[in-house]
Amino acid sequence: MSERLPTDVTNDPHCTSWVSSANRAHGDFPIQNLPIGVFRRRGSSAAFRGGIAIGDQILDLGALAASGVMGGGDAAAAVNAAARPTLNELMRLGPQSLSALRRALFEGLLEGSAQRAAFQPCLVAQSEAEYSVPAQIGDFTDFYSSIHHATAVGRLFRPDSPLTPNYKWMPIGYHGRSSSIVVSGQSFHRPVGQRLPPGQQQPVVGPSARLDYELELGVFIGNGNPLGCPIPIARAESHVFGICLLNDWSARDIQAWEYQPLGPFLAKNFATSVSPWVVSLQALAPFRVPLARGPHDPEPLGYLAGESNAVAGAMDIRLEALLQTATMQARDEPPQRLSCTSFRHSYWTVAQLVAHHTINGCNLCAGDLLGTGTQSGPAPDEAGSLLELSLGGKQPIRVGSTEERVFLQDGDTVIFRAWCAKPGAARIGFGELRGQVLPAESNGGRRG
Amino acid sequence: MSERLPTDVTNDPHCTSWVSSANRAHGDFPIQNLPIGVFRRRGSSAAFRGGIAIGDQILDLGALAASGVMGGGDAAAAVNAAARPTLNELMRLGPQSLSALRRALFEGLLEGSAQRAAFQPCLVAQSEAEYSVPAQIGDFTDFYSSIHHATAVGRLFRPDSPLTPNYKWMPIGYHGRSSSIVVSGQSFHRPVGQRLPPGQQQPVVGPSARLDYELELGVFIGNGNPLGCPIPIARAESHVFGICLLNDWSARDIQAWEYQPLGPFLAKNFATSVSPWVVSLQALAPFRVPLARGPHDPEPLGYLAGESNAVAGAMDIRLEALLQTATMQARDEPPQRLSCTSFRHSYWTVAQLVAHHTINGCNLCAGDLLGTGTQSGPAPDEAGSLLELSLGGKQPIRVGSTEERVFLQDGDTVIFRAWCAKPGAARIGFGELRGQVLPAESNGGRRG
Repeated sequence: MSERLPTDVTNDPHCTSWVSSANRAHGDFPIQNLPIGVFRRRGSSAAFRGGIAIGDQILDLGALAASGVMGGGDAAAAVNAAARPTLNELMRLGPQSLSALRRALFEGLLEGSAQRAAFQPCLVAQSEAEYSVPAQIGDFTDFYSSIHHATAVGRLFRPDSPLTPNYKWMPIGYHGRSSSIVVSGQSFHRPVGQRLPPGQQQPVVGPSARLDYELELGVFIGNGNPLGCPIPIARAESHVFGICLLNDWSARDIQAWEYQPLGPFLAKNFATSVSPWVVSLQALAPFRVPLARGPHDPEPLGYLAGESNAVAGAMDIRLEALLQTATMQARDEPPQRLSCTSFRHSYWTVAQLVAHHTINGCNLCAGDLLGTGTQSGPAPDEAGSLLELSLGGKQPIRVGSTEERVFLQDGDTVIFRAWCAKPGAARIGFGELRGQVLPAESNGGRRG
Repeated sequence: MSERLPTDVTNDPHCTSWVSSANRAHGDFPIQNLPIGVFRRRGSSAAFRGGIAIGDQILDLGALAASGVMGGGDAAAAVNAAARPTLNELMRLGPQSLSALRRALFEGLLEGSAQRAAFQPCLVAQSEAEYSVPAQIGDFTDFYSSIHHATAVGRLFRPDSPLTPNYKWMPIGYHGRSSSIVVSGQSFHRPVGQRLPPGQQQPVVGPSARLDYELELGVFIGNGNPLGCPIPIARAESHVFGICLLNDWSARDIQAWEYQPLGPFLAKNFATSVSPWVVSLQALAPFRVPLARGPHDPEPLGYLAGESNAVAGAMDIRLEALLQTATMQARDEPPQRLSCTSFRHSYWTVAQLVAHHTINGCNLCAGDLLGTGTQSGPAPDEAGSLLELSLGGKQPIRVGSTEERVFLQDGDTVIFRAWCAKPGAARIGFGELRGQVLPAESNGGRRG
């Protein structure tokens, strides 16, 4: 029996909140969303703690826990667990506790709620907040779940056989670095590394000349599995805490020179960005769609197969990537959209990523992060990286009123957004993920 | 100015300890060693805490901290930091504190020490101890530093060009999984996964039929570096906490099917084993040797170059791998040595691994673990994996009195040992790393 969550009262589009900014038509954070993050007042030296996005406010879970309004029981234990600088303890509590917490928060924020007086003092304006990576991430794994991305990139290296023979049999993944995961708003320096200039025999060391972004989603693990005990696909989603945006910044020249035979390494681990708000699977329940597979695609092997794959394994999460150059910023020009696509086009589902990751007994832990891999849709303007949009670096892209880009330049800010919308459901969003490229450190690697 | 540690009084081979078992001629743990680990009495529910191996005893750093005998100052702060279930806080203190701790422990354990009466009650017999992974490992990176291993394995896949063009320019590395790192003595189940049987078009799922070990060293990071700030090679060793044994268990059939294009993943992350004792660079100081490079090998690029590479960048750490089958165990036959080599044959030094890992700004953190990659020496019987010893699975190896092995079978125990010995220095050892292969879980992946 598959465990895809059905919609429940917390998805009811007719419900509104006494937090009036939550009821705007095109906002990200209506009462049907209730994503969780970790925040504090900007400039404060107080501890970071969990918070819930509602309209343009944050419900401070530290304050809510201290108020005692939740009483006892699962929801109260969950709020207490969430009142910490990282959400790992909350994640560890498992799906029943998370569900109880969601219900309790929904009831407290609902228009006409008897608990309004207790909840209202716990609100902090998002405009006054700063955020933190929401979990202590024990391990970060990046996948390659978009067949359109894999095909486009593969074509650059292997024109005759863009997809490796294993692509349609397994969600290909590789381990990433957790220490360099940063939250939206944090900038980073253009990485220095080895690259082999075209036509040369010897590599050189210097700032990457082919810096790129990758439009991905990040999947946080809730309760984990013991070492040696695979997670059956029917239970995979019960191990998922929620989903955020993820930018897997990539240095394509460093990657091309280093990646054989053991995969990407320094091309990736100089920085990875995540958005602050983690959207629950319950909030995503109205936006489940069938997994799109072709009639000639192989049937997945047993541990990757399941009825929920076909019926509602995928998620229609719209994704867009925008760019704002330093010049555009100086001229107050808005960011320019470079691509827009949907996670529904992914070849592999979130449940399949979890089941595959654990088939050999590997143990996922609360707070682990899985990247979906760059999400590109079927059309060229749905490509989730500059490498693809520029046709392998050959076709410059017009940006702003006067500029062009092949890869990122210093001062560029990349912005990701995601949302779900359909008739009969309340629109929910993921907020923004933004990051700016700073120039390479001028000492070229000689500091300590 | 390079920062390779010179020998000091703690390396003086004439010194002995009042712990008489430390003075045996061929022991691993004389007073010149003093490796640190995390332990508790077996069967106890007390907390794990730091301990120092001395002879056949452990100096309990929790007890030592509680005794107050260290007074104030750096050494006392270090002992307090070490009296915890993981050594990360100690690692973070940096090389000066570690050096002060080593001096203080050496003085306390020295024959004739005035502190014997305070130290003696803090001894626990190793035979009564159980161990834990010594650090909370934020990230695990595995390298590929042995040119003999890379060549032998590369030859199996690319007979005409076994080494990729980048091999001699950079220490190739990839991220591994930290959640599945276990300590010596912990067994694991044969992993289940996808493999493509020879000559077939479709993969199957089942227990790996080509399970192997990899004889490696593990390098623990002490104090880390901020994101964006590379570690210059001249300072790289000051960021190293110490070295242990590491077994990067590998499922070769899972690896062959999954590794393109993003590297090994499930073939590796079902289990990785480390030995309990971490040997300091100071203890290794007498065993530094020149890095062996050929006259036609390229000069390393600037950030990987340094006078200490040529003079004493390498370490003459002897390594051996032994196998004991279930049958041998039942017959009380001793483990059989399969290979013996030295870390001196590594193409890349520990300092180069650290400098390369951070050249792009990647941030190492206290407790991070770097695997050196399988260490194989130049001769065939110095190969650090069954894949190489069996010539790619083609040449069975005689084991015990009646058996053969190509790859590991259920019930096999693999044992690694390492030591350093030369005239004029006290022999030091790394203890043992052992792990046993249990049969695959019989449900083939349907538990959760």
